[in-house]
Amino acid sequence: MNYPIVMRLLGMVSWLIGATMLGSVPWAFPWFGQAEHVEWQGLIALAGSMAACGAIGAVLRYLGRGAQISIYRREAMAVVGLSWVLATVLGALPYLFSQSAVAWEEYDTGLRKTMTIADCLFESQSGFSTTGATVLTDIEDPLLLPRSILFWRCSTHFLGGLGIIVLFVAVLGQGSAGKALMRAEIPGPSKEGAQERMQHTAWTFAGIYCVLNLVLAVVLHLESMSWFDAICHAFGTMATGGFSTYNASLGHFNSAVIDYTVLVFMVIAGMNFTLIYLVSIGRGIQMLKDIEWRIYMTIIVAGSLVLGAISVWMYEDFDPNSNLRDAEEVVAAARYVPFTFVSILTTTGYGTHDFDRWNQFGRAVLFLLMFVGGCAGSTGGGMKVIRHVLFVKILRLEIEHSYHPNVVRHLRLGGVAIPDPELRRTILLYFGLVTFIFMLSWLMLVGLEPDSTWSEHNQPLQNKLIDSASAVAATLNNIGPGLGTVGATQNYEAFSSFAKLLFVLLMMLGRLELFPVLVMGTPAFWRKH
Amino acid sequence: MNYPIVMRLLGMVSWLIGATMLGSVPWAFPWFGQAEHVEWQGLIALAGSMAACGAIGAVLRYLGRGAQISIYRREAMAVVGLSWVLATVLGALPYLFSQSAVAWEEYDTGLRKTMTIADCLFESQSGFSTTGATVLTDIEDPLLLPRSILFWRCSTHFLGGLGIIVLFVAVLGQGSAGKALMRAEIPGPSKEGAQERMQHTAWTFAGIYCVLNLVLAVVLHLESMSWFDAICHAFGTMATGGFSTYNASLGHFNSAVIDYTVLVFMVIAGMNFTLIYLVSIGRGIQMLKDIEWRIYMTIIVAGSLVLGAISVWMYEDFDPNSNLRDAEEVVAAARYVPFTFVSILTTTGYGTHDFDRWNQFGRAVLFLLMFVGGCAGSTGGGMKVIRHVLFVKILRLEIEHSYHPNVVRHLRLGGVAIPDPELRRTILLYFGLVTFIFMLSWLMLVGLEPDSTWSEHNQPLQNKLIDSASAVAATLNNIGPGLGTVGATQNYEAFSSFAKLLFVLLMMLGRLELFPVLVMGTPAFWRKH
Repeated sequence: MNYPIVMRLLGMVSWLIGATMLGSVPWAFPWFGQAEHVEWQGLIALAGSMAACGAIGAVLRYLGRGAQISIYRREAMAVVGLSWVLATVLGALPYLFSQSAVAWEEYDTGLRKTMTIADCLFESQSGFSTTGATVLTDIEDPLLLPRSILFWRCSTHFLGGLGIIVLFVAVLGQGSAGKALMRAEIPGPSKEGAQERMQHTAWTFAGIYCVLNLVLAVVLHLESMSWFDAICHAFGTMATGGFSTYNASLGHFNSAVIDYTVLVFMVIAGMNFTLIYLVSIGRGIQMLKDIEWRIYMTIIVAGSLVLGAISVWMYEDFDPNSNLRDAEEVVAAARYVPFTFVSILTTTGYGTHDFDRWNQFGRAVLFLLMFVGGCAGSTGGGMKVIRHVLFVKILRLEIEHSYHPNVVRHLRLGGVAIPDPELRRTILLYFGLVTFIFMLSWLMLVGLEPDSTWSEHNQPLQNKLIDSASAVAATLNNIGPGLGTVGATQNYEAFSSFAKLLFVLLMMLGRLELFPVLVMGTPAFWRKH
Repeated sequence: MNYPIVMRLLGMVSWLIGATMLGSVPWAFPWFGQAEHVEWQGLIALAGSMAACGAIGAVLRYLGRGAQISIYRREAMAVVGLSWVLATVLGALPYLFSQSAVAWEEYDTGLRKTMTIADCLFESQSGFSTTGATVLTDIEDPLLLPRSILFWRCSTHFLGGLGIIVLFVAVLGQGSAGKALMRAEIPGPSKEGAQERMQHTAWTFAGIYCVLNLVLAVVLHLESMSWFDAICHAFGTMATGGFSTYNASLGHFNSAVIDYTVLVFMVIAGMNFTLIYLVSIGRGIQMLKDIEWRIYMTIIVAGSLVLGAISVWMYEDFDPNSNLRDAEEVVAAARYVPFTFVSILTTTGYGTHDFDRWNQFGRAVLFLLMFVGGCAGSTGGGMKVIRHVLFVKILRLEIEHSYHPNVVRHLRLGGVAIPDPELRRTILLYFGLVTFIFMLSWLMLVGLEPDSTWSEHNQPLQNKLIDSASAVAATLNNIGPGLGTVGATQNYEAFSSFAKLLFVLLMMLGRLELFPVLVMGTPAFWRKH
């Protein structure tokens, strides 16, 4: 391991995060109507955090002075993994300092909950990993969370979605390093394959991403959101994150127009950005030909229709009190079911509606949907549609192989044979690892989280098993809300610090597609040679 | 596909099953104290079933006349899969005919539930697959289930455990066919490898199995069971089945001596029979060296201790009403926890105690334990300990591979390298298939089973997701009882016929280690060439 270069790059990450915090500073002033007066609490927290980022960055760059620019796969993985750890810690500083600054405002903290260190780390990781899960019950309280810190919270989505490592490539512009890092960073198995196009892809990705964020923010502003809310929700949508500026999430606006706008942009955010690029240069036909895109769109349309029909006709989920007439129930389902379906599928996690009150089949579908995720090369989390497509194809081929052991057939995707002999094992391995991590985390959570978490929050204890499973699934796949005690109207506040730190690890595992985090737990990975 | 030879062999299966039914006939007479008078209902049902087996066997053998004795992998898989289907149907006949014979006894069937065709198939498959799940709430009712039919029910465990196909090898003695069939039949990845020893293994397996059944029956008889109960419970134990002759299962006897006896024999039944053979010829040291055996024993000892300690000290599961003093609680835990742990691990499913009243962590452990199973080459179901050992080793190797892609390392088992390059993919594939089948079945069950199954049986509806998951796990892994509505004091009676047929399929999938059943769903498998 070439430690000096790793240090140098981590120093760069530290400075970049500090620089991004500057973007939250203007929101501490009452210039845009989001704050009533100058928020000294937020300003102090941001200034302190930026100073810390600068200092840590300087130390890291000093430690990495005179580094040789030789980056191999091991260094690339170390940088990706460690920079995510570093970002989580640095991103937690504004929350932590803001808490400490509360005392300066002579506010009686005894009356309201403050954030523990685990809370701050959770909120930071949830932002960077574009999960959108929160431990904060009242984010509208300006003393708990000044507007500038709330903006920082949404900015972490933007940064996470863009990928700190994409910024690396853009800033450093180093050929081999950039390629190696991109390889580890761009989600999903690469269908493009050509490593030469990685850097170009990074720039394309970043450009499209920023344009889409801007477009959505403008549209949301035109739809009556303030600039503050519009930008924050654009960040949450395009990063498939899910942080809102209101306790009721998007449901706060109670606007069908806003719901459908965000729905469309969530669908776009879950697509492979390469395809969006091809559309933008007039080659939209490529998108229609793409097998992953077609299956992704089919899942959305068919899934929403089936789930909506079952909710309305079999269970009358949208008419629990018989206050709605049938036509109104269909309208409600047409608004809430596709939104929820897409919100979970793309791993965004915005809520407009308490889907925990749906029928059990609907809840089961949402649970499994958490593992699907968006397309490869999108900002979405989860396992990615393409992996599921390949997985099912591999299972079919292997079943045939069991009675025709001598017939060798290649995997085919969209009519083209994939000659990679390692692909089958890689895909199966990914499913195996996700299953293993999921089961182990579930068992740890059920075992170590006390029963009082449920009883003290008026949740039935017998739901501990399924609630815990959904909490693990929702963090590992970077969704946000789960079922029951972590459902759409709940949050992760109730959990112990141990559980919150477990979730921090799971969010990082999911966002970095397991390997860069798993190798960090292997002693051999850190050896000099 | 060489259809004539498949027909011929299926005809043989049919006759064998008919012949085995003879063993249940003596129990229709009041010779052993288990029945008060001659059970004409059972005699008629058995006679009718034997006639049907004979006729179907004759037709199949006629259709397969003049068959060429050429059996390849495809034919072997077809025979294994189809013979299990045939056995399920034929094994269901005694239940069905016994139901019809009830009318002859001029009994008012309106007052009690009778078995549907789905019920009969479920009970038959549950027996042959050594699952031990039941749809019968009152098996002690001699009009619903005459003693002779109850004995038939336990005999299906014996037959299933022995493996119909092992009988084939013994009866036909055909070299290549026997080998090919054994390959498909003996559970777990073979560590022995040499196909030449397959036939010898089959005989060894059968011999040890019969002796152990006999020994256990004698021991249980000495421990105050009647011969009828002793033989039936020996069948249920050694086959890792779990059918009892009482509604309260083994709990009926409420005897610590019987509990511990069955515990020891369940542990033996979950071991690789090759190792037991080696012990019997004085080479017991081989057992101590076997990595799978060592991990199996470690799981049992460590798991029971940890689970028992948590149940007693953290949750006081055995002292819910504070009627027991602490020492008594420890004694209760020492009796019930290891029994339950081993009963689920070995996929037997005998109950002495309602483990559904344990704490949630204990229930979660039991749920995951269902997927572990016994050792390869035992009568146990589940995924087998050795697959889990290899799975974890493969995950570790592949994590290393992700940052050292050029380093090729062999899997090692007990210090010996396994050069098989396909093994990694095969193990990962097996885990992938189990996960896929589990998830799909869970979704189907939650979607198609009406909510009234829970409400009408006083089970909370919010448990539908976890109860359904446990029902799928308990049938796919051939356990028997699950959690909640299919828990230790409940059964599968509440489910719809659709669900029962799904469980029949899952039990067959699990027992035959997926492939022989999966290929039957592939059209290409049935082509002539």
